[in-house]
Amino acid sequence: MGINLSNFLTSKEKNKRMNEFQDLDHLDGVSVSTVCANLYKNSRDDLVMFYFREGANFASIYTQSKIVSENIKWNLRNKPKKVFSLLVNTRNANCFTGKQGYRSLEKISETLALKLSELQKKDEDEPKKIKPREVMFGCTGTIGEIFPEENIKNKIPELVEKIKYTQNKYIWMKAALGIMTTDTQPKLAMEECEIGNTKIKIYGLAKGSGMIQPNMATTLGYIFTDANIPNDILKKLIKKNVSTTFNAISCDSDTSTNDMLTIFSTGCAKHSKISSINDEKLKNFDNALNNVLLNLAKRVVADGEGASKFITIYVKNCKTENDAKKIAFSIANSPLVKTAFAGEDPNWGRIIMAIGKAGLFINLEKLSIKFGNISIVQNGKINQNYNESETSEYMKNTNIEVCVDLSLGSKNFKAYTMDFTKKYVEINSDYRS
Amino acid sequence: MGINLSNFLTSKEKNKRMNEFQDLDHLDGVSVSTVCANLYKNSRDDLVMFYFREGANFASIYTQSKIVSENIKWNLRNKPKKVFSLLVNTRNANCFTGKQGYRSLEKISETLALKLSELQKKDEDEPKKIKPREVMFGCTGTIGEIFPEENIKNKIPELVEKIKYTQNKYIWMKAALGIMTTDTQPKLAMEECEIGNTKIKIYGLAKGSGMIQPNMATTLGYIFTDANIPNDILKKLIKKNVSTTFNAISCDSDTSTNDMLTIFSTGCAKHSKISSINDEKLKNFDNALNNVLLNLAKRVVADGEGASKFITIYVKNCKTENDAKKIAFSIANSPLVKTAFAGEDPNWGRIIMAIGKAGLFINLEKLSIKFGNISIVQNGKINQNYNESETSEYMKNTNIEVCVDLSLGSKNFKAYTMDFTKKYVEINSDYRS
Repeated sequence: MGINLSNFLTSKEKNKRMNEFQDLDHLDGVSVSTVCANLYKNSRDDLVMFYFREGANFASIYTQSKIVSENIKWNLRNKPKKVFSLLVNTRNANCFTGKQGYRSLEKISETLALKLSELQKKDEDEPKKIKPREVMFGCTGTIGEIFPEENIKNKIPELVEKIKYTQNKYIWMKAALGIMTTDTQPKLAMEECEIGNTKIKIYGLAKGSGMIQPNMATTLGYIFTDANIPNDILKKLIKKNVSTTFNAISCDSDTSTNDMLTIFSTGCAKHSKISSINDEKLKNFDNALNNVLLNLAKRVVADGEGASKFITIYVKNCKTENDAKKIAFSIANSPLVKTAFAGEDPNWGRIIMAIGKAGLFINLEKLSIKFGNISIVQNGKINQNYNESETSEYMKNTNIEVCVDLSLGSKNFKAYTMDFTKKYVEINSDYRS
Repeated sequence: MGINLSNFLTSKEKNKRMNEFQDLDHLDGVSVSTVCANLYKNSRDDLVMFYFREGANFASIYTQSKIVSENIKWNLRNKPKKVFSLLVNTRNANCFTGKQGYRSLEKISETLALKLSELQKKDEDEPKKIKPREVMFGCTGTIGEIFPEENIKNKIPELVEKIKYTQNKYIWMKAALGIMTTDTQPKLAMEECEIGNTKIKIYGLAKGSGMIQPNMATTLGYIFTDANIPNDILKKLIKKNVSTTFNAISCDSDTSTNDMLTIFSTGCAKHSKISSINDEKLKNFDNALNNVLLNLAKRVVADGEGASKFITIYVKNCKTENDAKKIAFSIANSPLVKTAFAGEDPNWGRIIMAIGKAGLFINLEKLSIKFGNISIVQNGKINQNYNESETSEYMKNTNIEVCVDLSLGSKNFKAYTMDFTKKYVEINSDYRS
């Protein structure tokens, strides 16, 4: 059932009462509704809609894969100034579905835009006519199966009827559950911050499980804020913060065709105008956004039937951050390192191997390696006081930190990963059968 | 116990009698001797010496890791015109052993050069004084342990005493066994060919196990021929042929600090002079060398407690060979693909994912995928006759071939790999304990 979150989340990341989840409640300008569209053959919610009654600024980051799903093509082609809805389905990735998959999105977006426009007429003082291209899609599930257009289209009236203008913690939890595929835990996070003197909320949901379950662990991350930030600055903020959060987690080096991270800014909070990413007023927001993203990213790593340990790889004092990142991922992605951790074996020789294979210049005489507080290699030599049994004891922890110090510069990078267990192989070798 | 070789070796690669190993016998100019130097705490042979009484031309390819063992540093620093001996020890990688490790090699090479010079005096018409730098070293085993200089040095007299000038199949088998760490099978291969009208032998030994056992599956490959080929042409020949053989196998994407592939040419066969790699007379030799290397490389893939399937990834019709190689390895190294194979699940969606993450331009409408003879995707569409139960049946084979056709050019690449089983995790998570 994944790793107990209380083992590695900071106290701030945990909710005091539930010790696991923070409570998301109302965020101005966002409505959430969920239904069961029978995409799975049971009665779980599998279709989730987010509705922005006044529209929302937004920015996205998508998978780097050269084969992308039809919904990502849709999102990339249709770039409205504001979006009014995000519709997320599970069970079907809408990838390798060709024209059928894309046309289905056209039809669904037409139906949804129509229904939302009717709602606008009913409820708004200045109703807007919502266009199909103002709808975004998130899809996750199996590749190469016909996209269930009818199932989804038929449920649009119900989704729209369910819209409420005040949200509570239950609806956010339902949404987090509704976007899951084989995640074992929903993933929610929140922060509050200030822009100027205005209180701002940042809410986040994610799906994806560390040990890449079926469907290549598509990672979907959706961030909602009531701040009023233009699209281009949102883009810069999310790009900047993704590198140390969602792009700092490594599960197994595989990349999904459907990965998507989007931030929506409803603008309902009335703070003074933000016109540059360097605006001092954004500092607090920037940090809070990073916290939400890191919190969600850690939850993705920790989830997964196979994972038994949460591992932080901290590479220090490199010439560039990119060097530090390369080495951190070379270690984090090494099956030999990950299996050693699963076996609680302090096999630091494999860390040496993984540092070497990263292909960067290393001055061995300056290299130091620590497991937690235990110094193993110091300036290229095995620590005289190195005590393997003490280190073996340390390896029994759920939360392991490896620190590699190159002493070649001043740039650092932290990568987060988990171990490679027999359970992982079991899950991934028969999930479709 | 690894994969039964008869499942994927061609009949030529197998020995008719033993159905598994070819018999290597006498090769002019090479003597082999093996001893137990007590590197392992049992009585197995763990130190192997190859002696070239007239010296040998040679060329090597080493690991690309930026952290290399002391013996590789030694080999790279000392580049004599001819080498007279190759000494291979197991159990200790001589990596991260610092000055102690390097100085040990100095002392061992002094002792060995002295003893071999005495032998030359006794047995040769024109005795040579062999220099320490004319000794090469191969090391494989654990990283970071003190190099056992004394154990090895003490056994040099015995190794030299055991030298015989006529070799038989048993001594080659002993050498192949003597260089093993946790390989489950020795690896030998041979070919005969002609240069002009002269018969030439090419013998090869290797160690390394597909599912990277302990010590990062250091791959050692040693090729011996009685042909007379200059060092620079040997270098070109081995570089050219390694790319489709040893560099076409992927186990888990990890890279050892000790990998080494060397070809030795004793020059005892009297053929006319070779002065260019383009010499027509070399064609036959070139092919035979490729066969020996491929045979050994396949044996490396097939070995390993964890492997249950031998998988060929054939990527066809790319713009460049490098593109084909990138995609082939993206598939071959994907833990998701490898676990699906272990589970005999024809999960071709994961092949699509791995093609996408390679990061190269793909025209989906031209993409075709086959498992064996079963067409799954044809020109970007799922084959109308695709029958999953037939494909599931195919997945039960030990020998699986995946063919990906990009239809973008005319360049191809074949990568060889194996599946990722629970047994793999078991072996690698507790090998040191």
